[in-house]
Amino acid sequence: MKKLIIIPCLLVLLACCVHAGDPLPSWQDTAPRKAIIAFVEKVTKPGSTNFVPVEKRIATFDNDGTLWSEKPLPVQCYFISDRIKSLAPQHPEWTNQEPFVSVIRGDLTSAFSGGDKAILAMFIATQSGITTDEFEKLVTDWIATARHPQTKQLYTEMVYQPMIELLAYLRANGFKTYIVSGGSADFMRPWAETVYGVPPEQVIGSTLKTRFELRDGIPAIVGVPELDLMTAANGKPIGIQSHIGRRPIASFGNSDNDLPMMQWTAAGGGAHLCLYVHHTDAKREWAYDRKSGDPFDKGLDEALAKGWTVASMKDDWKVIYVGDKK
Amino acid sequence: MKKLIIIPCLLVLLACCVHAGDPLPSWQDTAPRKAIIAFVEKVTKPGSTNFVPVEKRIATFDNDGTLWSEKPLPVQCYFISDRIKSLAPQHPEWTNQEPFVSVIRGDLTSAFSGGDKAILAMFIATQSGITTDEFEKLVTDWIATARHPQTKQLYTEMVYQPMIELLAYLRANGFKTYIVSGGSADFMRPWAETVYGVPPEQVIGSTLKTRFELRDGIPAIVGVPELDLMTAANGKPIGIQSHIGRRPIASFGNSDNDLPMMQWTAAGGGAHLCLYVHHTDAKREWAYDRKSGDPFDKGLDEALAKGWTVASMKDDWKVIYVGDKK
Repeated sequence: MKKLIIIPCLLVLLACCVHAGDPLPSWQDTAPRKAIIAFVEKVTKPGSTNFVPVEKRIATFDNDGTLWSEKPLPVQCYFISDRIKSLAPQHPEWTNQEPFVSVIRGDLTSAFSGGDKAILAMFIATQSGITTDEFEKLVTDWIATARHPQTKQLYTEMVYQPMIELLAYLRANGFKTYIVSGGSADFMRPWAETVYGVPPEQVIGSTLKTRFELRDGIPAIVGVPELDLMTAANGKPIGIQSHIGRRPIASFGNSDNDLPMMQWTAAGGGAHLCLYVHHTDAKREWAYDRKSGDPFDKGLDEALAKGWTVASMKDDWKVIYVGDKK
Repeated sequence: MKKLIIIPCLLVLLACCVHAGDPLPSWQDTAPRKAIIAFVEKVTKPGSTNFVPVEKRIATFDNDGTLWSEKPLPVQCYFISDRIKSLAPQHPEWTNQEPFVSVIRGDLTSAFSGGDKAILAMFIATQSGITTDEFEKLVTDWIATARHPQTKQLYTEMVYQPMIELLAYLRANGFKTYIVSGGSADFMRPWAETVYGVPPEQVIGSTLKTRFELRDGIPAIVGVPELDLMTAANGKPIGIQSHIGRRPIASFGNSDNDLPMMQWTAAGGGAHLCLYVHHTDAKREWAYDRKSGDPFDKGLDEALAKGWTVASMKDDWKVIYVGDKK
């Protein structure tokens, strides 16, 4: 047993050393990169007044627009659309019922502009009545092949390379990295570990209620058509407290939906890093902020007022996507 | 930075080696100890058909009666009682209202025999209307000084030494150890890391809903008088799926309330360990099972039928409490 334990420890040691080069090669050497590194060095330096013990190094990341692209619509909308279309034959009533009729017609913009009620109806339609194991398989199969309507890339190729480096850099410095997204937890968990290095237990997202039952003696957890928690806006600190029970010291987002998470992080008293990704690159990605459907407006004001870090995709990132060549 | 990273890695390495002696010295060399060690060796042996990669080594532990004593009443009942008594002057209506009047009178057995409705009323009375930070402080102060009504020990001295060794043994072998208790998550989190080595984010328990608000510009998370999730019985696999999103491969409990968690664990398909702690030691602890208020009856039947491990406190544990001399 002794030998078996020593080997993984040595691998950890080796993995740590490998990171000793430039940890953020896709970041320009501008203010955001400097702020990230200064923060990490400060909180990891033993004896420093800003030192944070490893168990309290919690970092929380929004997903859509922070770790991968969310335009023209967040990725989960395309999954929901495909799932509703595949379920439509069993739901003749949907042909007269919004938002389903818009989805079936292929007009996702109308379907997803129906507000929380419409989104909840679609969330329930796609995730309730099936087991968590069945839903995991649906997502795993879909994400492996579905492609972005404009770029035709796999969605997992439209993940931001600088943020992947940031996640890895934080983890190499003892941080636990969490996703805290308004999207469905069960939609992110099947692939977040492979794509982001974030295990399922560190993915916090919106959930339906579930029930536990024995089906012919075999235990199953089944989605129930009722909202459990929506982890957008104020739901983010609520989800953080419920799942983590500790306040993050670093948070990353891109819209007003992330503002309560940033506020909760910033109010912790000690050293903290709040970083907003600003979508400023119409050429390599999309450019949007104050007037977007999911605006970055109050968040931008508060970031500027409080001196939080704002990373401009155009000016501060050498590379956008994991698939891009440098 | 290189140096700073290498030091904690070497400490991990050292910590691993220290465990290379007998990892379970307080367990008799009987069937339960042999079953635990055989299971751990099997799932950690690279190349074995039963090998489980480290990220899937999830172990879930009930708390009351599994990690510490729960007689004559679960520890949280005494906390609730003290809190209700301290709040009573602000609630004159409680003097005519069950279960509060029984608590104020000191008759906890009556108060807690009022079923789920009474327990929920007390849960709400103790945790709603205050912030999570305030509640954490209340619990931290209470657990540091409150003593068991019969033994007069601190409650944290009535933690089971063999289970502490088991938690550490599993962690030394790459397991993530979780608590999944019907008790309040916020009641366990302030001390679970010190006492059990289980960080707040690995404590799953019953919760009230909360709201996020700015109080004079300062963010706060406040308990709302409404149940969020009760993680007893069927609520245990539900809480596990919601928080972890992966099925445990090892589960530990002591009553029928843990049976759904055991069933969920056992149905995972691969190697698994389901272990029940059986309260058989009237002399050193308490002896109870099928006729207890929180019975170990159906769970005992199913454990025997399915060949799960049942550890008798009397026969299989050399020592009961962390404070006991060997």
